[in-house]
Amino acid sequence: VLAPGATIGILGGGQLGRMLSLAAARLGFDCHIYTPEENSPAARVSARQTVAAYDDEAALKRFAQQVDVVTFEFENVPAAALRALTGSGKPVFPQAASLAVAQDRVDEKEFFARLAIPTAPFAPVNSRAELDAALDKFGAPAILKTRRLGYDGKGQARIMAREDAPAALKAIGAHPAILEGFAKFDTEISIVAARSRTGEFAAYQAVENRHEDGILRTTTAPASVAMGIAVQAQKYTQAIMEALSHVGVLTVEFFVMPDGKLWANEFAPRVHNSGHWTEDGAMTSQFEQHIRAVAGWPLGSTAIVSKVEMTNLIGADADRWQSYAADPEMRVHLYGKGDARPGRKMGHVNRLFPRK
Amino acid sequence: VLAPGATIGILGGGQLGRMLSLAAARLGFDCHIYTPEENSPAARVSARQTVAAYDDEAALKRFAQQVDVVTFEFENVPAAALRALTGSGKPVFPQAASLAVAQDRVDEKEFFARLAIPTAPFAPVNSRAELDAALDKFGAPAILKTRRLGYDGKGQARIMAREDAPAALKAIGAHPAILEGFAKFDTEISIVAARSRTGEFAAYQAVENRHEDGILRTTTAPASVAMGIAVQAQKYTQAIMEALSHVGVLTVEFFVMPDGKLWANEFAPRVHNSGHWTEDGAMTSQFEQHIRAVAGWPLGSTAIVSKVEMTNLIGADADRWQSYAADPEMRVHLYGKGDARPGRKMGHVNRLFPRK
Repeated sequence: VLAPGATIGILGGGQLGRMLSLAAARLGFDCHIYTPEENSPAARVSARQTVAAYDDEAALKRFAQQVDVVTFEFENVPAAALRALTGSGKPVFPQAASLAVAQDRVDEKEFFARLAIPTAPFAPVNSRAELDAALDKFGAPAILKTRRLGYDGKGQARIMAREDAPAALKAIGAHPAILEGFAKFDTEISIVAARSRTGEFAAYQAVENRHEDGILRTTTAPASVAMGIAVQAQKYTQAIMEALSHVGVLTVEFFVMPDGKLWANEFAPRVHNSGHWTEDGAMTSQFEQHIRAVAGWPLGSTAIVSKVEMTNLIGADADRWQSYAADPEMRVHLYGKGDARPGRKMGHVNRLFPRK
Repeated sequence: VLAPGATIGILGGGQLGRMLSLAAARLGFDCHIYTPEENSPAARVSARQTVAAYDDEAALKRFAQQVDVVTFEFENVPAAALRALTGSGKPVFPQAASLAVAQDRVDEKEFFARLAIPTAPFAPVNSRAELDAALDKFGAPAILKTRRLGYDGKGQARIMAREDAPAALKAIGAHPAILEGFAKFDTEISIVAARSRTGEFAAYQAVENRHEDGILRTTTAPASVAMGIAVQAQKYTQAIMEALSHVGVLTVEFFVMPDGKLWANEFAPRVHNSGHWTEDGAMTSQFEQHIRAVAGWPLGSTAIVSKVEMTNLIGADADRWQSYAADPEMRVHLYGKGDARPGRKMGHVNRLFPRK
């Protein structure tokens, strides 16, 4: 158990690291950010930083020596970096298994299958022949994705009809891939949950997500799905976290199919954009919850205190900060990023719906 | 109007500066902390710091050049420091008038009197003869206080009977003083309010404070006083802020007397311990509200979202962090101070009372 005053090491300097650091500060911890980026959003609110590449094993070891626990704001931690950190003797949460499974879309889908959690049909694709065979098996429409390193719709190509296959292969480049059958879902929901170092589990209520151009646009908490569906999603999430012996926050995205069944889409072994509503709508934010878990603290209450609609501010959306700031029902969260490039997540707003 | 990405300069590195910095970060601002203390609670969550004495005019000028607005976590800013900052050309909020009046208990009481706001009877005391004359006028019990630099019960001595007078004078030392008649109040309440750069005013609901050994122990929000009393307290607070053309948060402590009248006790031209409940119980925290005001933003909503009981963790109280962290109705706030000296404010907890 880490006492207040201890130092939390966080790999990654983006907005998730920033919000983790702010939450850790509230509990009396110092944070040390490891990132290749100078002047990163997370380092600017943290006690210490190391600016170095993720494959700089010497820097990683020095970093581990200076902190009391290591955690991550992203799952694509290179395997060599992970080895350098775990070899340091300092606790590292989540553990390697959670990252390894989440880094590969085929491993992830096979992991879901082993836990009897339904998914869209899928097949690994390493060649045009394998792509054709997969399309024979479950047809178009389907989505071709790189197995590794995709996010926010990147590394993906839709195949609406068989003749799209060559263009799709070209679009994602010469990478090991996966073909996933298109899920004609009613709703997309996600579960953000945490597991402590003692195995305690706590899930937030299911929330409903709407994407635009492959990027999360809004999350509504709680989701307006039947109680049975929400509870099933929490059970699947718990099974995933137990199977991984995961410590920290983990998020699972599900499709709610027309027959009421859930298909797992993917999981992220970390705090998640669809959990940003918890900062203003839950008794404990997902960021504090993650810090509690990795620090060996008891988990906080996941009780909902207000219905919330979270909207991401993407690219030039953030230029409208003045109108958001003037809305008495909005809580504004900005990440301190200078350059509002198209598609870049600059902040989010939580609209609260006070109970009457 | 400061856009996100601007830098807020904060004089003072304690917990109030820390919580101001955390709130500013959420709005996308960077903070630069000016403090004589190495490794201060506020600097450890801020982008930049200057470690220098409060009377180092050259350092103050350099600091002002590097920020977009200057504000304070405390009112006892030396006059020379204030001149160095205001001479820099950068906006400084709150302005000198608010600090000057708050720094001197006699000036403060006379200021209340000019606004027709009742107070305990008082008299300036510079000698034994003046003390005796004041005791002749309004009798014991009374409290002898230094005019300047008192806080948390420091620089004060009670006079229960006339024969205590010499000991009281000795206890506070050879400082200009004030004798205040003892207020036999029913309740102590405070109003935390903000005024924007455009003169917009917004007050939080009145809260009830309980002190122990001269230090705030608990704040209950909202106060259980009659609506008329709470509204009168807000009106007095607004009159104070208008008279000072104050920009930022300001807090006024009042005694509620047995006849239902309010006596102003003192004001602090800043965020205040009795406003810590707003972090978890109000739509906008007092810290964000202060940042909004000094940055030229519109004020946020002061609507209450949950009834709260705030308890300060003083000295060894903070050792019980594990039991607070395990309570699902508590939100824990720790300041990152290493040394839990008796009487030192180490953190606070907000107990939330969810509406049924």
